[in-house]
Amino acid sequence: MKLECVGLDLSDAINKVIRATSTKTTNPILEGIELVAEEDYLTLIATDNELSIEKRIRAEVGMEGSTVVPGKFFGEYVRKLVNENIQLTLENNILTIKYTDSKASIQCQDATEFPRMNRLQNGEKFTIASKDLKDLINKSIFCVSTEDSRPILKGVLLEVEDKTIKAVAVDGYRMALVKKNIINATKNLKAIVPAKSLSEISKLIDDTTEDVTVCIDKNFLMIDMGDTTIITRLFVGEFINYKQILPTTFSSIVTVNKTQLEETLDRVGLLSRVSRNNLVKFDIKDAMMELSSRSELGDVHEKLTIKLIGNDLSIDFNARYFTEALRVLDNEFLKLNFNSPASPCIITGTEEDDFEYFILPVRRF
Amino acid sequence: MKLECVGLDLSDAINKVIRATSTKTTNPILEGIELVAEEDYLTLIATDNELSIEKRIRAEVGMEGSTVVPGKFFGEYVRKLVNENIQLTLENNILTIKYTDSKASIQCQDATEFPRMNRLQNGEKFTIASKDLKDLINKSIFCVSTEDSRPILKGVLLEVEDKTIKAVAVDGYRMALVKKNIINATKNLKAIVPAKSLSEISKLIDDTTEDVTVCIDKNFLMIDMGDTTIITRLFVGEFINYKQILPTTFSSIVTVNKTQLEETLDRVGLLSRVSRNNLVKFDIKDAMMELSSRSELGDVHEKLTIKLIGNDLSIDFNARYFTEALRVLDNEFLKLNFNSPASPCIITGTEEDDFEYFILPVRRF
Repeated sequence: MKLECVGLDLSDAINKVIRATSTKTTNPILEGIELVAEEDYLTLIATDNELSIEKRIRAEVGMEGSTVVPGKFFGEYVRKLVNENIQLTLENNILTIKYTDSKASIQCQDATEFPRMNRLQNGEKFTIASKDLKDLINKSIFCVSTEDSRPILKGVLLEVEDKTIKAVAVDGYRMALVKKNIINATKNLKAIVPAKSLSEISKLIDDTTEDVTVCIDKNFLMIDMGDTTIITRLFVGEFINYKQILPTTFSSIVTVNKTQLEETLDRVGLLSRVSRNNLVKFDIKDAMMELSSRSELGDVHEKLTIKLIGNDLSIDFNARYFTEALRVLDNEFLKLNFNSPASPCIITGTEEDDFEYFILPVRRF
Repeated sequence: MKLECVGLDLSDAINKVIRATSTKTTNPILEGIELVAEEDYLTLIATDNELSIEKRIRAEVGMEGSTVVPGKFFGEYVRKLVNENIQLTLENNILTIKYTDSKASIQCQDATEFPRMNRLQNGEKFTIASKDLKDLINKSIFCVSTEDSRPILKGVLLEVEDKTIKAVAVDGYRMALVKKNIINATKNLKAIVPAKSLSEISKLIDDTTEDVTVCIDKNFLMIDMGDTTIITRLFVGEFINYKQILPTTFSSIVTVNKTQLEETLDRVGLLSRVSRNNLVKFDIKDAMMELSSRSELGDVHEKLTIKLIGNDLSIDFNARYFTEALRVLDNEFLKLNFNSPASPCIITGTEEDDFEYFILPVRRF
């Protein structure tokens, strides 16, 4: 293998794929990045056996070939050469990196050992605007479970039905349900995608990304974004029947300014963060909602003006579940829908119905 | 105690003094901030018994008094109220913080329990431009020892002699010696100041700080900067006789561009950082200096153009000692002065003689 490329291109490609390398592995080749020089391109591939990210850059290839470089060192080293043209030469598993007056030699591994994930040849497809996909991921992913007891809840359920896609994430205490329009789909689809993979997909989408075509088969999902290809394994199994747990009628409906609620929760929640229980009390009465918390250090009370339809109510929540949901929303006003101190709060927009957050209260003793 | 003040002023003052609170202490009052309302001012004081920082802000005082608030919570809470006017009222050791529609109550401790450090009444003094003091600290402090075996080396020696001040820091492998002019002094002085205190003093100096008068007695150093007062304990004991260990003649003198040396060391040092020995080899020959490092991953070589007066030389260093010194210097060119592979390198400027860094080489086996 022998090629020349632009340092900035190479560094940018490494930064993209390196997130798929495995850092805690007993198989050292998963810490590596596969380099493939072919025709006018250098392709970089990294995988942890669950997620694979592949990125192609222009290169002047003198001799085709492939190898596996140690990811972390290669990335850190090339990052320091971004202003230079770089020559890469492979000989006897030693990769020589040359630029101006200097050179580095790196011990590499054989590319035949690299566990490359196969591109999906068949499978169903849907197409979605890239910013809708990013939004769908970011507004649902923080609700996934982090516990190993029900591994399937570490994934987000994607459901394509006619012209819409739903993303559902649940951790047992709260649930996010986000809806977006899609551009088209070959058929209705369901897939449970590991949250980690979705998080990386979201990071790879930027303002320049065009519409994205997602290809799904029984075990894998693949996204082709021009020079970048992402493949992830899917979780196989039964997801929670989320439709069953969503209440449809409410006895107290509060309309509140989102930023005001966020800032108030931030101040009131401070005390409960110190005492680590995160407990914040919501007292809803007429046109006022008082939030309060208490710890051995003292107590904080703050009042918010709201619009209330229905009954007064006093209910306790883990403040973190509210703040994490509010952080990803950009609505000016929100609706908080309640039934009783023991029933969930459903957060929705005041007009559109493109998201619902379900938050269980903390029971009082 | 009863007063009203501007949230932004209070928050700024807390941020300044809170750095002197103790975070790992068996005496909880050292985690607190003393508040003193007197005449038209609120004064905030924090101390860990080694360093004390005091800051005064304007306040409308309705009733004078004092108390000790829990530092961390008070700081985080007030930081969220910076756009507001704040009312503080103390009753039965409960401090009530009121602003607009909200209030918090905090459990406080009695101010009589607070171990306030006394202001220096007598003692000798010197005056220095604030930017010179900051520079003196920043260019020496990173060389102090972090080991407990010789606690006095965790301090920086300050020596006032006639119209100059020297700062000396040593950790056994390297030494910094920095010189600055002073404006005046009541007499020649010596003091060993804890590095932690000097670091906080440097942070409190900003572009608006005027000339600084430093007051020193046998056990304490005090700096009065208008509304901010800093008092620190001194280390008592004998410092290293640094003059003895500085060589005065050299057999190889290298002149090198500082930025080029820094960038080269950064790339070459990467490999040795991965292997954790930090070893970089300097090969000096004619008008070239080659830096290189080697680890199980591979090796890196890079050449620099230099001016050499004297003999060729090959010598090994811990790269970190070089990069930490280069980071604080802003000279365009530096001189590296050598004698042999077993003797220290002395880094100086090419013209001024206001700093000398002494770095021991790594012996080869």
